Amino acid sequence: MVKANDNYLKLPGSYLFSTIGKKVREYSEAHPEAKIIRLGIGDVTQPLAPAIIDALHKAVDEMGVRETFKGYAPDLGYEFLRNTIAENDYRSRGCDISADEIFVSDGAKSDCANIQEIFSLDNKIAVCDPVYPVYVDSNVMAGRCGDYDAASGVWSNVIYMPCTAENGFAPEFPGETPDLIYLCFPNNPTGSAITKPQLQEWVDYANKVGAIILYDAAYEAYISEENIPHSIFECEGARTCAIEFRSFSKNAGFTGVRLGFTVIPKELKAGDVQLHPLWARRHGTKYNGAPYIIQRAGEAVYSEEGRKQLKAQVAYYMDNARYIYNGLKEAGYTVSGGVNAPYIWLKAPNNMTSWEFFDHLLEKVNVVGTPGSGFGPSGETYFRLTAFGTKEATVEAVDRIKKM
Amino acid sequence: MVKANDNYLKLPGSYLFSTIGKKVREYSEAHPEAKIIRLGIGDVTQPLAPAIIDALHKAVDEMGVRETFKGYAPDLGYEFLRNTIAENDYRSRGCDISADEIFVSDGAKSDCANIQEIFSLDNKIAVCDPVYPVYVDSNVMAGRCGDYDAASGVWSNVIYMPCTAENGFAPEFPGETPDLIYLCFPNNPTGSAITKPQLQEWVDYANKVGAIILYDAAYEAYISEENIPHSIFECEGARTCAIEFRSFSKNAGFTGVRLGFTVIPKELKAGDVQLHPLWARRHGTKYNGAPYIIQRAGEAVYSEEGRKQLKAQVAYYMDNARYIYNGLKEAGYTVSGGVNAPYIWLKAPNNMTSWEFFDHLLEKVNVVGTPGSGFGPSGETYFRLTAFGTKEATVEAVDRIKKM
Repeated sequence: MVKANDNYLKLPGSYLFSTIGKKVREYSEAHPEAKIIRLGIGDVTQPLAPAIIDALHKAVDEMGVRETFKGYAPDLGYEFLRNTIAENDYRSRGCDISADEIFVSDGAKSDCANIQEIFSLDNKIAVCDPVYPVYVDSNVMAGRCGDYDAASGVWSNVIYMPCTAENGFAPEFPGETPDLIYLCFPNNPTGSAITKPQLQEWVDYANKVGAIILYDAAYEAYISEENIPHSIFECEGARTCAIEFRSFSKNAGFTGVRLGFTVIPKELKAGDVQLHPLWARRHGTKYNGAPYIIQRAGEAVYSEEGRKQLKAQVAYYMDNARYIYNGLKEAGYTVSGGVNAPYIWLKAPNNMTSWEFFDHLLEKVNVVGTPGSGFGPSGETYFRLTAFGTKEATVEAVDRIKKM
Repeated sequence: MVKANDNYLKLPGSYLFSTIGKKVREYSEAHPEAKIIRLGIGDVTQPLAPAIIDALHKAVDEMGVRETFKGYAPDLGYEFLRNTIAENDYRSRGCDISADEIFVSDGAKSDCANIQEIFSLDNKIAVCDPVYPVYVDSNVMAGRCGDYDAASGVWSNVIYMPCTAENGFAPEFPGETPDLIYLCFPNNPTGSAITKPQLQEWVDYANKVGAIILYDAAYEAYISEENIPHSIFECEGARTCAIEFRSFSKNAGFTGVRLGFTVIPKELKAGDVQLHPLWARRHGTKYNGAPYIIQRAGEAVYSEEGRKQLKAQVAYYMDNARYIYNGLKEAGYTVSGGVNAPYIWLKAPNNMTSWEFFDHLLEKVNVVGTPGSGFGPSGETYFRLTAFGTKEATVEAVDRIKKM
């Protein structure tokens, strides 16, 4: 008699952003006149840059001609893209990463969620708290997280590393030794960054205790300050303790295009087992490569025009970030983030809970953000706003909040 | 101390098609003058149809303009595509499937590999033998298959349903009751089809024993005979025992474009647990939707021009299938398949093993096929040729084999 995977049933409610979507839909139906501004989900609003549009058209044309048509892509991605990534994201920063250590995929979300599969079910994970929900939920589905306590919002078999105003939103080494450590910097949701010496300490720690760092660098394009690492492979020793996830979603507006990659150094091992061939096997068995035309679009991100256009796009969003940050500060809010990341993290006023503030903002000024508690217990009383709206919408949202 | 997923280490050697690729590369390097013809991997060779190219260009243009730019796609796929699929693939055939039972994805391979995640690790799978390797390998990775016996090519905890000339390449109900039954018709690799009464028996069986059929209908576009079901949902009672996988790879040449979908009826349950929300949760947590431009290309598959052009494309490949089938028959081979599927399944001559015949064909006439034993123990002494080559290459390959 067939049985379901019971671990799925342990997941509380639906995925955070589905819940927000539902609340907004319901409000919208009840108040059809409301002009709702969405600064909740981290979705971009600027169109694809011209260099990318050109590359897509060119690749589409190739697919229409027998001589240049492309069928199945190489499992791990086309060499033209992997070489470009290795050169521009790694070797140009002095990181020793080769093209065949790069696995092209349909996005960092899939990779972050799937990576746990190549590890033992006995392994214990550590996550920052607050945290991007995918890290935890994917481990819950696999059965690694124990049981959920609804009152505290805590999983019994997960090591939480609180990141709050008290520690400058930087995690501290946990009391219990983890096997897998999820780190995301610049951070989603807090918008905080980590310095290179701080990250080096984590690399040293992981090498010492025999843990692996799963490093999500999806927001590296938003780094504006010096001494903030763009890749964990800038740190010495990272090749023996780290896997890195990168995305084209936020640096190039690919949320609806879907492209990302994962870096697994060849010497990375779990015990005696080399991990690179395991992930390669997973790719080969459970995936069929990113579309050719999308990989060509990814290549265009690194072209001279592509770079120039995307630098302007990132600057556009960071102008929004500054506007939100400064506006809320002026209005008396306690605010952080927004300098090396497109996220602004604020404290809900008047001892409101995260969801109370969500409802408050939605109802009073029709602005949608993301409740901090949706990212973990230490996110309670915090709130995330994203800089990915249009300039007009962002300005209006901030002005509405200031007048509230 | 971090540990790897040991189940991966149980997998023998590399994925079948990687091994073939390696052998061909090595032969090619040793014999640079050889004009190798590849009828091994099921990859298409015809370019995308004009209607699809037009849809792609149009969607790319939309992505370049702020007003029509699309970010994250809806988790389960755009409504325009799901409605089109529900209408054309199901309701027009009298199948009671609604748009919200359709989950759009990046391909049937991913879905076939990932579907096992929503079931208990205790569930036992049954597969046809020979079988598309992804069904078994994805379950091995999850830890459901027991141990591998290299001598027999058999996993200790998998129920095999032999499909050989003796039973007309149609599986029989297994002695032991399975929980999950993988069926693929028209079949990869044997090219055989199943009649509607035969499939109805499987549906009745699954409902009786409380099993779920995972039905891979990736090749339904190649059905040429009456009374062969295009969907398992043509059978009565399938809504309570079946999940169906469909692909755009072979009916529209999307192997390098990546689009597929999975159908999970709302009343499908494992015990008391409804499976539709579990798969929805998986999609929402571990996937971010197929690219907008690709979903628009999928929609064009169903347009009037799209249909006409793709009918011609399928006919082109089926002409190849007939040419291979007849040519090999004339040459004295024992051949099956090729009528409702783009695969020709032949018996290796002179008591050769599958890999012996692979080497023989590669060395004597520089033709690449797929060894039947790569698909399971009952595939031994068989060999698969695909009709997806160009007409010229197919004709030359057959002529070379005939002269051999």
